[in-house]
Amino acid sequence: MADTSTSNLAKTTKPPLRIALAGLGTVGAGVIKLVEANAALIARRAGRPIHITVVSARDRGKDRGVDLSPYAWEDDMTGIAARDDVDVVVELVGGSDGPALTLARNAIRHGKALVTANKAMIAHHGMELAAAAETARVALRFEAAVAGGIPVIKGLREGAAANQIERVYGILNGTCNYILSTMEDTGRDFVEVLAEAQAMGYAEADPTFDIEGIDAAHKLSILSAIAFGAQIDFASVETTGISRILAADIAQADALGYCIRLIGMAEADAGPDGTPGLFQRVQPHLVPLDNLLAHVDGPTNAVVVEGNFSGRLLFQGPGAGDGPTASAVVADIIDIARGMDTGFEADMAFSIPVSGLEAMPPAPLGHRLGRAYIRFIVADRPGVLAEITAAMRDAGVSIESLIQKGRAGDAGAVMVAMVTHEVREAAVTEALRLLDGSPSLAAAPLVMQILGD
Amino acid sequence: MADTSTSNLAKTTKPPLRIALAGLGTVGAGVIKLVEANAALIARRAGRPIHITVVSARDRGKDRGVDLSPYAWEDDMTGIAARDDVDVVVELVGGSDGPALTLARNAIRHGKALVTANKAMIAHHGMELAAAAETARVALRFEAAVAGGIPVIKGLREGAAANQIERVYGILNGTCNYILSTMEDTGRDFVEVLAEAQAMGYAEADPTFDIEGIDAAHKLSILSAIAFGAQIDFASVETTGISRILAADIAQADALGYCIRLIGMAEADAGPDGTPGLFQRVQPHLVPLDNLLAHVDGPTNAVVVEGNFSGRLLFQGPGAGDGPTASAVVADIIDIARGMDTGFEADMAFSIPVSGLEAMPPAPLGHRLGRAYIRFIVADRPGVLAEITAAMRDAGVSIESLIQKGRAGDAGAVMVAMVTHEVREAAVTEALRLLDGSPSLAAAPLVMQILGD
Repeated sequence: MADTSTSNLAKTTKPPLRIALAGLGTVGAGVIKLVEANAALIARRAGRPIHITVVSARDRGKDRGVDLSPYAWEDDMTGIAARDDVDVVVELVGGSDGPALTLARNAIRHGKALVTANKAMIAHHGMELAAAAETARVALRFEAAVAGGIPVIKGLREGAAANQIERVYGILNGTCNYILSTMEDTGRDFVEVLAEAQAMGYAEADPTFDIEGIDAAHKLSILSAIAFGAQIDFASVETTGISRILAADIAQADALGYCIRLIGMAEADAGPDGTPGLFQRVQPHLVPLDNLLAHVDGPTNAVVVEGNFSGRLLFQGPGAGDGPTASAVVADIIDIARGMDTGFEADMAFSIPVSGLEAMPPAPLGHRLGRAYIRFIVADRPGVLAEITAAMRDAGVSIESLIQKGRAGDAGAVMVAMVTHEVREAAVTEALRLLDGSPSLAAAPLVMQILGD
Repeated sequence: MADTSTSNLAKTTKPPLRIALAGLGTVGAGVIKLVEANAALIARRAGRPIHITVVSARDRGKDRGVDLSPYAWEDDMTGIAARDDVDVVVELVGGSDGPALTLARNAIRHGKALVTANKAMIAHHGMELAAAAETARVALRFEAAVAGGIPVIKGLREGAAANQIERVYGILNGTCNYILSTMEDTGRDFVEVLAEAQAMGYAEADPTFDIEGIDAAHKLSILSAIAFGAQIDFASVETTGISRILAADIAQADALGYCIRLIGMAEADAGPDGTPGLFQRVQPHLVPLDNLLAHVDGPTNAVVVEGNFSGRLLFQGPGAGDGPTASAVVADIIDIARGMDTGFEADMAFSIPVSGLEAMPPAPLGHRLGRAYIRFIVADRPGVLAEITAAMRDAGVSIESLIQKGRAGDAGAVMVAMVTHEVREAAVTEALRLLDGSPSLAAAPLVMQILGD
């Protein structure tokens, strides 16, 4: 045991890992609180203390509920990267470009490790940053960018590393999940629940990124790269948000044995001609009530990773919030503290070196097989149902169940909702094309896939 | 990009990591299948190929569904540790002592990294092995020892490393979960379902380790050490199995809004006098039907980690089987391949160096507050209910609901099941002491805690 205690002593006398923190919103303040509250155990687990040496944000005077006096202050956010007393730059500024990106580039250029929670920046510039980090032999980590406090990037990149990943999917946006599960619980409409979510801080003043699925698409594109060794391709994520979902859709789904969840899904998918492609979609799905994801309520996130040996792994937890996000940020810092002697971290951002990430073209969608929920708002007059069902027949879409129901808000309009048998997506697209422009339709139809096994 | 591709080239020309595999049961064969099937992607992710160089098992001739001809063979299992062509020894022999332990000690002594799926060995000898690994500066990894293919050790040790862990609990034994959820689905009795599970390969011929909770206790003691920085204390896990649970208990629980699951739970728990202690219990619990763990059916495992910043993280997936277990074994190997240049792995077995693990005395149980389900099998005659309820009253146990119901198998015996209000466990113990030896009781009472938030 003599050697052990010597090595232990050697560990504890390692110099502190020095952190520069840029961005002092709720997550930034959360990181300060965490590093202070858990300092002793973090030092024990990291093998060295974690010290925040300098902080930077737009407004020095703002009350954030944390005492900034122990830390140096820099007005110039991008300047902190050049400081000699910094080993790791933590970027919590946000935004895909602008000061966040400038800071990130500077940090790496100056040989600092970079930890970020910035999903937009990684989705847009992750490969450039990872390549720079490899060149500079520094770590680039972004666990907090996907699914808040849940260590799903680690789970995918390391925990499931032995597997060919067959599919990765899940609930990646807590705001949407809060809205959908609250609509479900209360029977209220989207607009009303969104307003409440904004009042409670679960949704931003401008909720577009969340409710239109863009935030989930950012996260999905990051997961795809790691899961499939693919170059990040955010632009190709087929993205549909939740703003068109009616209380009536949720009621109808429930009656059929489903709930509605915004699902991000990625899969390596060979098209009809066998060309390998990358399927990436964010779309509200009907989730069977006995599916794992049907029990994910409120602002929770959950990610399923399906590996060819591991089977189906589920990672679930708080998808946002200062505490969980700070937990993920500091986990990355601890990993860096533990492994900093080595350069292997530098090649780990997307599990393999950036130069090895394949350019995978977007998979064609039409040949995908699945069941779909299709909802129409139609004029309440004879013949409309015949018109819709004829279009389905002509496109080769077989209907499993159909319901025409009550009034859906507008006077004179009724809802027709159907679930198809398994069918190629191209057939559904064709059926809707046949109906396009029909005066019977009071609104564009809404299509949601049914989550399959 | 020039530098990047150079570094990439440097990575791919790293020598293979050479594996010795001891034990060729279903998991050992699974590791061979995985390493062969996913060789290319593993080499890419690990930065170097993973080569199995030598294998060893008791019986060379046995048909295992894998071709062993590419690998050297050693009859002497413990001898493989001394070979020059081995970097990592993978121990899949099983058993807490005997050849597995001898091999593990030899491997570390010869400076080889050790990967094992052996929960019993780690629960009994994990600290000795980790201390030896620290001295030898080699990695000791055992992801596959807890919850099969689910990367929960990584999740706890790394993903949640920034947190003070408040509680870790979950479903740690797939055999028990299969039996309980099948009893639930079919209404059949324990003995019958166990026999079926044995026929299907979900339970061993001698199922004692599984059904009496010992396997779950092994796993729990490993999780406790990592979560709380505590010395492993398997002997202090309060362990109750599932063999006494009746179909009638499951029906009764269901009527009250619960299912029954074997839960392992650990918590740092200061006793009434403030002395820090470690609470560790494996016991069937009543799980509210709206709890995350109530949806975990079949041979699935699920672990909840509650951190002071992360909140509640859930890790779920296949708890056993050759594929999932092999996935966890090879994930450990890939981690070693990625980080072998450094010695930090050697201090990571339990998240901190062994010398830092605290000796935490078992927490006293009596002061714990909770609600309990208590079931009696009693003689069907007047006054029995009065006797039981008087004992509860005298011990200060307040009853929330009580049901006396039908016959429970034996002629003349009936079942009385109750759920208490929140009460100290000592009070329940005292009530049962008051009833101890009463001729009214046809069998020892069964107590199950109700899983609280």
